[in-house]
Amino acid sequence: MLNFTVGPVQSSEQVCAVGAEQVPYFRTPEFSRVMLENERLVKQFAKADEDARVAFMTGSGTASMEAAVINVFTEQDRVLVIDGGGFGHRFVELLEIHDIPHEIIKPAFACGVTAEQLAAYDGKGFTGFLVNLDETSVGVLYDIQLISDFCRRNNIFLVVDSISSFLCDPFDMKALDVQVMITGSQKALACPPGISIIVLSPRAVERVYANHPRTMYLDLKLALKNGERGQTPFTPAVGTLRQINTRLKEIDAAGGADAEVARIGGLATYFRDKLQEYGLPFALVSHSLPNAVTSLTPTGGASANDIFNILKDEYGIWVCPNGGELKDTVFRVGHIGALDRSDFDTLLDALRDMQTRGLI
Amino acid sequence: MLNFTVGPVQSSEQVCAVGAEQVPYFRTPEFSRVMLENERLVKQFAKADEDARVAFMTGSGTASMEAAVINVFTEQDRVLVIDGGGFGHRFVELLEIHDIPHEIIKPAFACGVTAEQLAAYDGKGFTGFLVNLDETSVGVLYDIQLISDFCRRNNIFLVVDSISSFLCDPFDMKALDVQVMITGSQKALACPPGISIIVLSPRAVERVYANHPRTMYLDLKLALKNGERGQTPFTPAVGTLRQINTRLKEIDAAGGADAEVARIGGLATYFRDKLQEYGLPFALVSHSLPNAVTSLTPTGGASANDIFNILKDEYGIWVCPNGGELKDTVFRVGHIGALDRSDFDTLLDALRDMQTRGLI
Repeated sequence: MLNFTVGPVQSSEQVCAVGAEQVPYFRTPEFSRVMLENERLVKQFAKADEDARVAFMTGSGTASMEAAVINVFTEQDRVLVIDGGGFGHRFVELLEIHDIPHEIIKPAFACGVTAEQLAAYDGKGFTGFLVNLDETSVGVLYDIQLISDFCRRNNIFLVVDSISSFLCDPFDMKALDVQVMITGSQKALACPPGISIIVLSPRAVERVYANHPRTMYLDLKLALKNGERGQTPFTPAVGTLRQINTRLKEIDAAGGADAEVARIGGLATYFRDKLQEYGLPFALVSHSLPNAVTSLTPTGGASANDIFNILKDEYGIWVCPNGGELKDTVFRVGHIGALDRSDFDTLLDALRDMQTRGLI
Repeated sequence: MLNFTVGPVQSSEQVCAVGAEQVPYFRTPEFSRVMLENERLVKQFAKADEDARVAFMTGSGTASMEAAVINVFTEQDRVLVIDGGGFGHRFVELLEIHDIPHEIIKPAFACGVTAEQLAAYDGKGFTGFLVNLDETSVGVLYDIQLISDFCRRNNIFLVVDSISSFLCDPFDMKALDVQVMITGSQKALACPPGISIIVLSPRAVERVYANHPRTMYLDLKLALKNGERGQTPFTPAVGTLRQINTRLKEIDAAGGADAEVARIGGLATYFRDKLQEYGLPFALVSHSLPNAVTSLTPTGGASANDIFNILKDEYGIWVCPNGGELKDTVFRVGHIGALDRSDFDTLLDALRDMQTRGLI
């Protein structure tokens, strides 16, 4: 079963091998060392400030999205949020649930935000900005430099959901003045899902300690305090955290974050070029392509969902279906996880075979 | 490395083998079937009402403790809570954070609650009751029949944290009129940590749908709605949920919950009897023993924490240390996970060897 979804993705052999091991008791110096190494490598790969901190949350990416929102913003903030798809819209819902004043920037379908769109909010007194850098639901990468410049000139606290972009697209947390960055275990980290990760700049750490969200589980103060000694306030997904450790060291040994971004970007380009070269009947959906995923619309009349099902049932290949309105018009091909060019050749061969059979 | 902690515990070979597998994409009928089977077996083992529902939360046990508190209680409730150790106290803190009126019942150290203690609260207008059935921090099992009778005669909504008791001690959710039961993946379920589980009676499901907690991640309405088709609102710990499925089927094949309770109880009795037979210098801490764990105090002057370290470093055996004030006076031996009598013989031999060496 070859997996081109956008998560969970395929893990390396070493990561799978750790998954087979017994999970050790964790209130030990041995596990603390694993966690402190995880923190160090995540900071290094995010290009975070050396005084930045990392919280490892046992939970889905949404747990960390909610934790970020309620730990760094309050009802006194005024937050701008980009609502360009399912995940951007989740931030809007979180702001609503927690009564945090906000305004929505709505990009055109499958498009990024423009300088003009942002300029309309210059000098309007906003204090926070929320964006999910790669809106994975349609495969749109927002221009983080543009957003960073806007936030810097307006002194706005920038929170970036980088769940599907971390290690895929170039990113420099410190240079971009990003205060909070979120990612998850099951995207380019290519581990099983169950852990989400929040990187906090020194300014963000200050906000966390000054803030009093009404929650125990999502209170980042507890995570930060326990994290000082490489521990967590509650029993974490110890097995997944050990797999993350294995994976971070693999990436480090292969050249670090830049090398991984180049590798994933190379696979994305290879796949997109071959699609065109072979004249396969698909159009790119996104006008601002991320490296992690290519969203495609069938142009020959086939249903995207049928293509997903045929690939799964007849070829043992999983691409990523879309739900809701886009179910029949869009499917996605991920470029993250333990995949190489030969895997994309296998997918391309399957698609060419489906074309020969008149299925697409 | 032989693991007698109270979680994470040792997993079966089959569960470890699933941990080595690639984690599949999960928005599929195949994964829905796994989840619906998980729900069916958890309900069966909890002896829940046939219309009960189960929420599988990606998170620590505390995530489900907080979710339970905020989804079934409100500021209009008056809740009684047993504060007999670290985990009971966590419920008190959750009630405080969420401004839910409450009163604390404080048992004597290492003791259960008595009929007299409860009788003092008869007819006082309480609406809710929170107890962690096995207060694992000291190894005390509360008398659930006593608590159930009290709640029934006072028409009180009973929420039971059964994280360390589920599948260890006899429990019948429906007969006991328990409205919410919480457990976790890393206790008697003997899977890696990362999933906690909430079983909701039909009355509890009604409360969840009527209630509006200020959270997205811990909102059980979302979990219940998605759960109807065997799905989750956010990407769950798919790998751990597949391991739970394997484990639930193992338990079912071996005779179900009653057989597992008898097996774990048998191991606990075996270990406790042998301790006495060999005249090892330990006293039982708890005056109300659960099946999952035996908490012990060294009576020969040795430090409990030293015993933990020597067993780990010199014998490759992990018992469970205590933290805080109890660090030097109490350690715990768990009876859950993939352990059999020969494993307890190994531990007993190590303790006898330490006695010969004059270390205890």
